[in-house]
Amino acid sequence: MRDRFKKEVNKLAQDYTASIPFDKRLYKQDIAGSIAHAKMLAKQGIISDKEAELITMALTSIREEIEGGEFAFRADLEDIHMNIEARLIEKVGDAGRKLHTARSRNDQVALDMRLFAKEAISQTIEKLVGLQRALLDVAEANKDEVMPGYTHLQRAQPVLFAHHMLAYFEMLQRDVSRFRDCLGRTDVLPLGSGALAGVPYPIDRDFLAKELGFSRISANSMDAVSDRDFVIEYQAAASITMMHLSRLAEELVLWSSAEFGFIELDDAYATGSSIMPQKKNPDVAELARGKTGRVYGNLLALLTVMKALPLSYNRDMQEDKEGFFDTVDTLLSTLEVFTGMIATLKVKGEKTRRAAEEGYILATDLADYLVGKGVPFREAHNIVGGLVQYAVENGKTFKDLSLSEYKNFSSLFEEDVYSVTVASSIGARDVPGGTAPGQVAQQLARARKIVQG
Amino acid sequence: MRDRFKKEVNKLAQDYTASIPFDKRLYKQDIAGSIAHAKMLAKQGIISDKEAELITMALTSIREEIEGGEFAFRADLEDIHMNIEARLIEKVGDAGRKLHTARSRNDQVALDMRLFAKEAISQTIEKLVGLQRALLDVAEANKDEVMPGYTHLQRAQPVLFAHHMLAYFEMLQRDVSRFRDCLGRTDVLPLGSGALAGVPYPIDRDFLAKELGFSRISANSMDAVSDRDFVIEYQAAASITMMHLSRLAEELVLWSSAEFGFIELDDAYATGSSIMPQKKNPDVAELARGKTGRVYGNLLALLTVMKALPLSYNRDMQEDKEGFFDTVDTLLSTLEVFTGMIATLKVKGEKTRRAAEEGYILATDLADYLVGKGVPFREAHNIVGGLVQYAVENGKTFKDLSLSEYKNFSSLFEEDVYSVTVASSIGARDVPGGTAPGQVAQQLARARKIVQG
Amino acid sequence: MRDRFKKEVNKLAQDYTASIPFDKRLYKQDIAGSIAHAKMLAKQGIISDKEAELITMALTSIREEIEGGEFAFRADLEDIHMNIEARLIEKVGDAGRKLHTARSRNDQVALDMRLFAKEAISQTIEKLVGLQRALLDVAEANKDEVMPGYTHLQRAQPVLFAHHMLAYFEMLQRDVSRFRDCLGRTDVLPLGSGALAGVPYPIDRDFLAKELGFSRISANSMDAVSDRDFVIEYQAAASITMMHLSRLAEELVLWSSAEFGFIELDDAYATGSSIMPQKKNPDVAELARGKTGRVYGNLLALLTVMKALPLSYNRDMQEDKEGFFDTVDTLLSTLEVFTGMIATLKVKGEKTRRAAEEGYILATDLADYLVGKGVPFREAHNIVGGLVQYAVENGKTFKDLSLSEYKNFSSLFEEDVYSVTVASSIGARDVPGGTAPGQVAQQLARARKIVQG
Amino acid sequence: MRDRFKKEVNKLAQDYTASIPFDKRLYKQDIAGSIAHAKMLAKQGIISDKEAELITMALTSIREEIEGGEFAFRADLEDIHMNIEARLIEKVGDAGRKLHTARSRNDQVALDMRLFAKEAISQTIEKLVGLQRALLDVAEANKDEVMPGYTHLQRAQPVLFAHHMLAYFEMLQRDVSRFRDCLGRTDVLPLGSGALAGVPYPIDRDFLAKELGFSRISANSMDAVSDRDFVIEYQAAASITMMHLSRLAEELVLWSSAEFGFIELDDAYATGSSIMPQKKNPDVAELARGKTGRVYGNLLALLTVMKALPLSYNRDMQEDKEGFFDTVDTLLSTLEVFTGMIATLKVKGEKTRRAAEEGYILATDLADYLVGKGVPFREAHNIVGGLVQYAVENGKTFKDLSLSEYKNFSSLFEEDVYSVTVASSIGARDVPGGTAPGQVAQQLARARKIVQG
Repeated sequence: MRDRFKKEVNKLAQDYTASIPFDKRLYKQDIAGSIAHAKMLAKQGIISDKEAELITMALTSIREEIEGGEFAFRADLEDIHMNIEARLIEKVGDAGRKLHTARSRNDQVALDMRLFAKEAISQTIEKLVGLQRALLDVAEANKDEVMPGYTHLQRAQPVLFAHHMLAYFEMLQRDVSRFRDCLGRTDVLPLGSGALAGVPYPIDRDFLAKELGFSRISANSMDAVSDRDFVIEYQAAASITMMHLSRLAEELVLWSSAEFGFIELDDAYATGSSIMPQKKNPDVAELARGKTGRVYGNLLALLTVMKALPLSYNRDMQEDKEGFFDTVDTLLSTLEVFTGMIATLKVKGEKTRRAAEEGYILATDLADYLVGKGVPFREAHNIVGGLVQYAVENGKTFKDLSLSEYKNFSSLFEEDVYSVTVASSIGARDVPGGTAPGQVAQQLARARKIVQG
Repeated sequence: MRDRFKKEVNKLAQDYTASIPFDKRLYKQDIAGSIAHAKMLAKQGIISDKEAELITMALTSIREEIEGGEFAFRADLEDIHMNIEARLIEKVGDAGRKLHTARSRNDQVALDMRLFAKEAISQTIEKLVGLQRALLDVAEANKDEVMPGYTHLQRAQPVLFAHHMLAYFEMLQRDVSRFRDCLGRTDVLPLGSGALAGVPYPIDRDFLAKELGFSRISANSMDAVSDRDFVIEYQAAASITMMHLSRLAEELVLWSSAEFGFIELDDAYATGSSIMPQKKNPDVAELARGKTGRVYGNLLALLTVMKALPLSYNRDMQEDKEGFFDTVDTLLSTLEVFTGMIATLKVKGEKTRRAAEEGYILATDLADYLVGKGVPFREAHNIVGGLVQYAVENGKTFKDLSLSEYKNFSSLFEEDVYSVTVASSIGARDVPGGTAPGQVAQQLARARKIVQG
Repeated sequence: MRDRFKKEVNKLAQDYTASIPFDKRLYKQDIAGSIAHAKMLAKQGIISDKEAELITMALTSIREEIEGGEFAFRADLEDIHMNIEARLIEKVGDAGRKLHTARSRNDQVALDMRLFAKEAISQTIEKLVGLQRALLDVAEANKDEVMPGYTHLQRAQPVLFAHHMLAYFEMLQRDVSRFRDCLGRTDVLPLGSGALAGVPYPIDRDFLAKELGFSRISANSMDAVSDRDFVIEYQAAASITMMHLSRLAEELVLWSSAEFGFIELDDAYATGSSIMPQKKNPDVAELARGKTGRVYGNLLALLTVMKALPLSYNRDMQEDKEGFFDTVDTLLSTLEVFTGMIATLKVKGEKTRRAAEEGYILATDLADYLVGKGVPFREAHNIVGGLVQYAVENGKTFKDLSLSEYKNFSSLFEEDVYSVTVASSIGARDVPGGTAPGQVAQQLARARKIVQG
Repeated sequence: MRDRFKKEVNKLAQDYTASIPFDKRLYKQDIAGSIAHAKMLAKQGIISDKEAELITMALTSIREEIEGGEFAFRADLEDIHMNIEARLIEKVGDAGRKLHTARSRNDQVALDMRLFAKEAISQTIEKLVGLQRALLDVAEANKDEVMPGYTHLQRAQPVLFAHHMLAYFEMLQRDVSRFRDCLGRTDVLPLGSGALAGVPYPIDRDFLAKELGFSRISANSMDAVSDRDFVIEYQAAASITMMHLSRLAEELVLWSSAEFGFIELDDAYATGSSIMPQKKNPDVAELARGKTGRVYGNLLALLTVMKALPLSYNRDMQEDKEGFFDTVDTLLSTLEVFTGMIATLKVKGEKTRRAAEEGYILATDLADYLVGKGVPFREAHNIVGGLVQYAVENGKTFKDLSLSEYKNFSSLFEEDVYSVTVASSIGARDVPGGTAPGQVAQQLARARKIVQG
């Protein structure tokens, strides 16, 4: 593309600007786009059917060369588009020289990125659903296990382990929905926008859309070549998903600690130490937690790139690719490895139950007990607050307190206060979304239906 | 809430943790939620109708106190919830002490934030549409103006000014669609989730949802109190919108420069200098460009806050508010001031036209001219590249070149090469989304219909 | 400054661009700068001594008006500079109209920001040292306490609690050093740079620097008005400090959990729950952890603002202030509240010791024991790995294993294997920086000296 | 390191956690560290001299294998450390098995990263100085060229082109200073910290420091293995540098536009279009501007990774590498390519001069002219504001105005008002840091001395 220049590009500048090291990953999309473009050109009489056929055959064999590892990518040809075009011209001569009619790299790369993104979104949704299934499996397999629910990492109220897992199911379900919405905005054909102003040929954009599986065509050529919203939106949705996974990862790390001891990761998902022979480390969870940072970074990077760019295409936009590819790879692999890790983890139900029974986790239930006897909630909370303070100071649990000790705080306490238990606490939260066994069973059933749908 | 503590909170710690300086902004939402909660408690027989009535009346008068500036917010009461509850108890005693039955601050604040977010989203969409209308107005008012289209900030191909404006219309249209999707995920009632596990009272969550205008209730109580996805999603959508506005801002700054001189901002939207008397600065556009940074920062801040938090509520989540409020305020005010600025700007059509006619902007059209005579595009591009180099060296424009000079590059050039003009170039791009006048008229009509819909 | 405009500024635009709501915080710096400027102008004969005196007296009384709450800030006067100048002119007429000679708001605001930043840095360093002292105090008060050291949140090797605290001392020491370096680059006088090109008056910049306490004057006027590096550098250093504090916060949260139970926060630094009467939450630590996000966000926001701005001043740069103020406030208050929280926390030494003695934490020591008997480390690691696996399967600790069980894994094990204890393990790490008591005592002494220095 | 596990690691988990694909880049540092470690172990009698010699020779040959491309990296060996150790043991058996005595991967990787960072910082400083030199060269070569100085992208006051270039020199000089400070904090030996607690062997850390070229040893073992401040600090400094370069890039893009036309990039640093034959695009500058985003993203990513990690090593920290390498590569290549681009650009002095002479750029000088006649500056500003408004409305420049027109605005205007020129304006700004030729010459001389130093 240096037809007007008298000088070769400086080697450093060439390496600096070449995108072929990473955009070669788009070869499949680029070739598919070119084949559709050639067919359309022929259909519209802009090139001959013969030429279109030659181009199609040659591009097909170029794809095979690439997949067979026989294609020599050249940095001096800048990018995947020119690498493939150059090879095409080598193979078919003038027909190849006609392929770029009614097209620019600006709409071409927008097309390639949208094709890639559409596939990435589909895979992401599929893997999200895979992890949802694993969460449901482990929830169902441990559906009677009880554990402390936490706020502020302090034991708060007992919950079912399955209820806790279902919270992650919900998060992932929102993620699925967010990626679906993103897909809708990605599913728009930019080809036919030319460099920025449209093309002066009687092209058929609807035909192109149909050939390439798009639902719509872009409505404004300048926007079409300037727009990378769909990449940013994927990055934003991925950031939220990674945030969700980082929360799950944090819990897996906590629960694997000696102090919690709530779960045991399968040996196949744990690693050891180069120096401490006893270590069984939850590295996969830690790494996923860490990789959240890189996905956030990629989001921010592209937002920064696009900030304050005048229309239409600017070379800054070449920076849309590496971070996007990295986020897609990171998210897909994290979802996949989490699916295996969750599917194989062992819940140590005895430990989670014991933890739920210790301490003063039933204090809210005692307050609610008093409310049941007519005490306003705020006053009941106050009374039980005093009771907790008394018990802590005397080194007693609620069960250790005598009825007369109870009565020192409120005369309304009766013998039935001892029937306030972890089981009664859980059972009482029998509202939609609550942790009572029947509610959780319904949530599980509903969730299972969603992932089958 | 310090019933179990023997000591007052440290003053620094109190100031550090108090959210009342900023969450008082949620008073309206908090009171609406409490009124609905009280009604529901009465309907379910958890409190008496009389109590509900007392609560409702008192809360209504508290709202008036706040709006009248007579309410004394207290930092020692931590947050908006306890400030209002304390005042309520002052007013109605035991009935007030019962309001917090079957509720926790955890589901209460989640409710307040969702109510606030829903309203913010509606306002955002409304203001986006307002700006879209202003863009259409200026496009229509200048529908015959021609300007250079740019890539790499180099003049690339001529376009209609209206076409350029429509590119921004498209961006904002995606923004509208993104906020609508966000609204769908925000429109979920969390109340009834209690601290984290649900509540041990026979509440009616569907009634609450109806009272408060929610379409759905949350499916998992732990998720409901741990989830701030809707705030992040708003922040992400706002970041993309600000990115779009920063691009427009950049163009307004460029176009207002002496060098471009394409537009003149109305005096009402420009500012002067403290030292240089001649200056007319596009400060609004510059500031909007700058404020993009703060909106990105708020997005990132919340993503960072939420990373790796174990379930369910953690105090870190209090940090969801200030950044969110700031982003909402920034986005709404930017949209509003842009609407006025766009509506009043003056396009200097003579300057844009002259810029479009200078230079070698018709080079693509010359290549397409040769393609029309049977030259493969890549070869045509090559030929015109040589022609440009020749013209530059000889200080000539295309119009200055003689036919024989043309023919030195290709014998296919004929007299009709001189009919390649800015007008012919624009007219030729007669494809859907292209810049040809007919296409742009269709785009305008379609756009107008969208903002009327 | 609207001398050349025929129209008033639009109200929305005025509110959008006005900085007075936040830059009024710079009144002290602005007045100090103006007094120095007036003195210099008089010294150089640009204004009369009498005028300088009038200006100085009036500015002093304006400062008192502001501090007394009697100053009426006006948004239509845009910023703190014009608000003060307008009031000055009200007070002293023409003398006031001369103050802006040889000055622009561009160098004036750069000066104000640098004066503010210098003070902020000094306060930050002071508060860092305060927290370091608290860490040393708690380390010394608990200097014999033993706890598990962790990697991957798995118990790894026993350490002294004081050693652990000293790790944070080191981090903060790097922070101090980083802020000192930042101070060096901030301590540069920009005044005299004018709007961008310098000023056409015989000013004395060295005099100004001396008056205002700067070590150096800026070397290039365009840079001086375009530069906000010092704000970004503060933000970056603050981000690293907050990252350090977030790690400490995370540990305080973990250690306060029922599962760890290593410390008890003083009641004055803990908060309760609106619904769960038993809760004692480490809210201060959680909030600090959360506030890390906002400080990161502010850093990123300003980096984004400054990206790709052409020289010299652009209005985008007004966005340097709010985020900076917020970061300074957040960092200072977090350091202060941590100092109190650390100073009052209670280490539960019995619990930390028991945790250090459980499990297989001495496995590395057993490997080192074998190395001492001539086994290559990698092989020793291998042997002890097998031993751990055997012990886990048989539900035994190392102490429970008989010598013959040991010998099944290596015949080199002898009776003295039982003298491998937590104490011997800690004592053996007697290298500079290691956890042996003597080393830790030295580290403490060195640290104490640093904070006294 | 799976001695205690009964199961192989899952293949997905292995791939997910393996760092060898990127940490192999640290082979040189890892081997240097191991050789020094072996020497020290021998010197201290922990291994024999013979063993140390064997290890050293084998490691040397392993380095050659790697550099010769003959080394087979294995993902199942996780990382560069274990890959090299495994090969070492293959080569020398038991001596190799002893190398890991008194060491852990935790202090080993901290060492490798610090060695790498030290070298990266040195290279960065070198390349910064290289670009500074190029800026000085172009400034000196065009030292008489005049251009408009801008604020708000509006022509503000005339400046020397050299003065403008020197502003960038100053920015880069701060960058140099920032990287030097970072080097000071990086130059600390972590080896000898073991896994986290120090090592139970009589090692000599000072010897290690000397061997490996470190100025100091770390003071606390837990900090030493937990600390990645030096990587973050590099990233922060790099972000500021890229911000500076993005500003320069923006100006190069602006100046290369047809509208400005201030410079012409050398053909060797420009690229063409696939469709528009006339295009000469400043791609290098655009890409550098875009790459600013990725460097910001890498900074943010690591800050996010490190947030709230409990001590000491956590696997999340493996994420410190890729972003760091990417930032180093990006920064070094950007500096290098800018050096060439700046060195070869051509300033179109006639165009910059003409731009400086157009419009009302001398308005400040007119105000200062009136100040010279006794008018208070604020009033003078006011008068000239009116003059500008009058001139604009009448389509006149200052030169076009008659003396009587001047006098309509102030009777103090005399014939000498016509001697206010671009040259007089520039010459008058004769203050340190100002744009007067003598001042700029001094700045140039001082700058030249700095880069020679």
